[in-house]
Amino acid sequence: MREVCIAGTGSTTFGRHSAVTPQDLAARAARAAVLEAGIARSDIGAIYVGNFVSGVLTGQEVLAGLLADHIGLAGVPATKVEGACASGGIAFRHAVMAVASGLCEAALAVGTESMTHADTATVTAALNCAMDHRSDGAAGLTYPGLFGLVWRAHAERYGTSREEVAAVSVKNKRNGLRNPLASMGADLSLDDVAQSKPIADPLALYDCCGISDGAAAVLVTTTERAKEAEGLPIRVLAAAQSSGPARISGLDNLLSFPATVQAAQRAFAESGLSPTDIDLVELHDCFSIAEIVDSEDLGVVPRGEGGRWALDGRTAVDGEMPINASGGLLAKGHPVGATGIGQIYEVVQQLRGTHPNQVKEAGIGLTHNLGGTGISCTVSILGRPDV
Amino acid sequence: MREVCIAGTGSTTFGRHSAVTPQDLAARAARAAVLEAGIARSDIGAIYVGNFVSGVLTGQEVLAGLLADHIGLAGVPATKVEGACASGGIAFRHAVMAVASGLCEAALAVGTESMTHADTATVTAALNCAMDHRSDGAAGLTYPGLFGLVWRAHAERYGTSREEVAAVSVKNKRNGLRNPLASMGADLSLDDVAQSKPIADPLALYDCCGISDGAAAVLVTTTERAKEAEGLPIRVLAAAQSSGPARISGLDNLLSFPATVQAAQRAFAESGLSPTDIDLVELHDCFSIAEIVDSEDLGVVPRGEGGRWALDGRTAVDGEMPINASGGLLAKGHPVGATGIGQIYEVVQQLRGTHPNQVKEAGIGLTHNLGGTGISCTVSILGRPDV
Repeated sequence: MREVCIAGTGSTTFGRHSAVTPQDLAARAARAAVLEAGIARSDIGAIYVGNFVSGVLTGQEVLAGLLADHIGLAGVPATKVEGACASGGIAFRHAVMAVASGLCEAALAVGTESMTHADTATVTAALNCAMDHRSDGAAGLTYPGLFGLVWRAHAERYGTSREEVAAVSVKNKRNGLRNPLASMGADLSLDDVAQSKPIADPLALYDCCGISDGAAAVLVTTTERAKEAEGLPIRVLAAAQSSGPARISGLDNLLSFPATVQAAQRAFAESGLSPTDIDLVELHDCFSIAEIVDSEDLGVVPRGEGGRWALDGRTAVDGEMPINASGGLLAKGHPVGATGIGQIYEVVQQLRGTHPNQVKEAGIGLTHNLGGTGISCTVSILGRPDV
Repeated sequence: MREVCIAGTGSTTFGRHSAVTPQDLAARAARAAVLEAGIARSDIGAIYVGNFVSGVLTGQEVLAGLLADHIGLAGVPATKVEGACASGGIAFRHAVMAVASGLCEAALAVGTESMTHADTATVTAALNCAMDHRSDGAAGLTYPGLFGLVWRAHAERYGTSREEVAAVSVKNKRNGLRNPLASMGADLSLDDVAQSKPIADPLALYDCCGISDGAAAVLVTTTERAKEAEGLPIRVLAAAQSSGPARISGLDNLLSFPATVQAAQRAFAESGLSPTDIDLVELHDCFSIAEIVDSEDLGVVPRGEGGRWALDGRTAVDGEMPINASGGLLAKGHPVGATGIGQIYEVVQQLRGTHPNQVKEAGIGLTHNLGGTGISCTVSILGRPDV
């Protein structure tokens, strides 16, 4: 496998685009990525689109083919990939594999989702397509319900406090205020979070990411070709994927998602790096408590101390392990299929030193995209070319 | 890229399994393929599931993760791929790429779909997810309508007759009678087809494939490992994919689908073969007229003569270019995501010499899987190891 770089990036804002189709959002992000990469269209040999519920919510499938045609690339193999909330990360990994294996010189990875046109009950039902209907779904579980249970388990095992969990939301919502792509940034106190509207006890409104529309894209190519790009090329040091238990009864406990642990192990093995080499992380904070569990599963924060680290500012932009400097899902929103590529987009800007909420001396960044009840996960590691 | 073989195959019958979920159908086919391959589970490094509308029709997504968990492979990267009716072919190509690139030693490609539990109007709406809603969909087009238009264009340009088109259905329905996996085989006359219930003029009922449930699976591995398999390993000589115009207004005419032409060109280039090297074809006869156009697009029948060849028996099992000896979609039914893998399954049995409707001296076979209004297509070429 040859080394691969990200040469171009594009993203819409994440928020409300209820009059725009998911394929048009995808086209906007994709065109920007292709333009920034300065790559000839004829070099693009593969297109991957990460999307979760456009069939269910908009009645439109074949998004990859539609995108290829819309951006003048009809003929190029175009594939939609789906792995619930990890669909974007899976699209990225496949674009990387297409170039790394020598199959083509450049590949486009795009994530897209449209959700805000539908009412909350419809969106909740659509999101539940990621659960095994015969067990977790049949039991009436929802995602806020699941992460409410995760919180209770974490609090019981490690004594994690309400303030510690709220500290994640306060941090991410504040980070989001500096990110023009994030529509849900806010300046909140710990009390504001704790006192917000109850959703699924103990989760309150500000512990939850918001329903959003959006798309993001990256153009992946060889190290050689990436030199012709407008912006600094960013090296792909690892692009790992795992699956995990399909239902929560398959988990040993609610303190860890095996798919995250396994994808992270693979990414570190692939890159020859360890958690201490990581300068910043964009991880899947679909809920405040999810960031705590994810950070521990990734090994970037000690087991059981995720909440403590957030409250102590150790995961802040100027902390020792900055997490979700972009604002994460909590401040950007979670247009499901777009999220994984959006994370890659954010880390690329950080490693280029051009992020609006810049982490100092950012050389190596990690992204983590988790699907369903841990049924799928991707972990990617990106590096500045001089690192 | 290293050479890759199919070492194991599995398939449910295609027909009515309305009480079985698409993930359970997938698991049945996958278990059979793994067993037949005699490959250690720990060698399986990738799972691809082709599926089109399980989200829309059953409310269940993440089929790849569910399958991995159900067959004891939780942890293995598991990805659902979607490209409308070509989803199965796309899954196969990605399993091939995973092994050919050296990413893993063995990969599982599975296609699955459940449709018969829903009423016809619901299924028709679901299938229309493969159309661009803002053009073809908005104009009220359906797939029978599209292929009715294709027929009219072909008849006008080449003088194709009702008898020639019906000859495709008569052949495939009869072939299906010999295939235990096909539930819609029948012994019909040309008149029976022509006089069957009108669907979308000039298409009648027996010109159309049926709504079905089913799953098929193949296990792909290295040539070395494939030698340990129970059955004869079959070489993958090409696995090509293309996209095409998203709407029919993007086609030059209704006589050809550019995605088929392009995927076929790539497959022949990849294998170093030409249409005259092909001993049998399984192609996407979603409608009788589709077989005629597909066979011409693939170059295995001269342009404009597809109907004539069918009527003259030149595409029969004992003809010079046997097409759809399995019965094709017309006799097997079309459980959308399963179809592309089902075609691979059929060709493997032919090349092993174990097919219930065996083509004589079958050394090299081609499969063709077409999605939507030609928005995606795969063409694969398989060969006996001694050819």
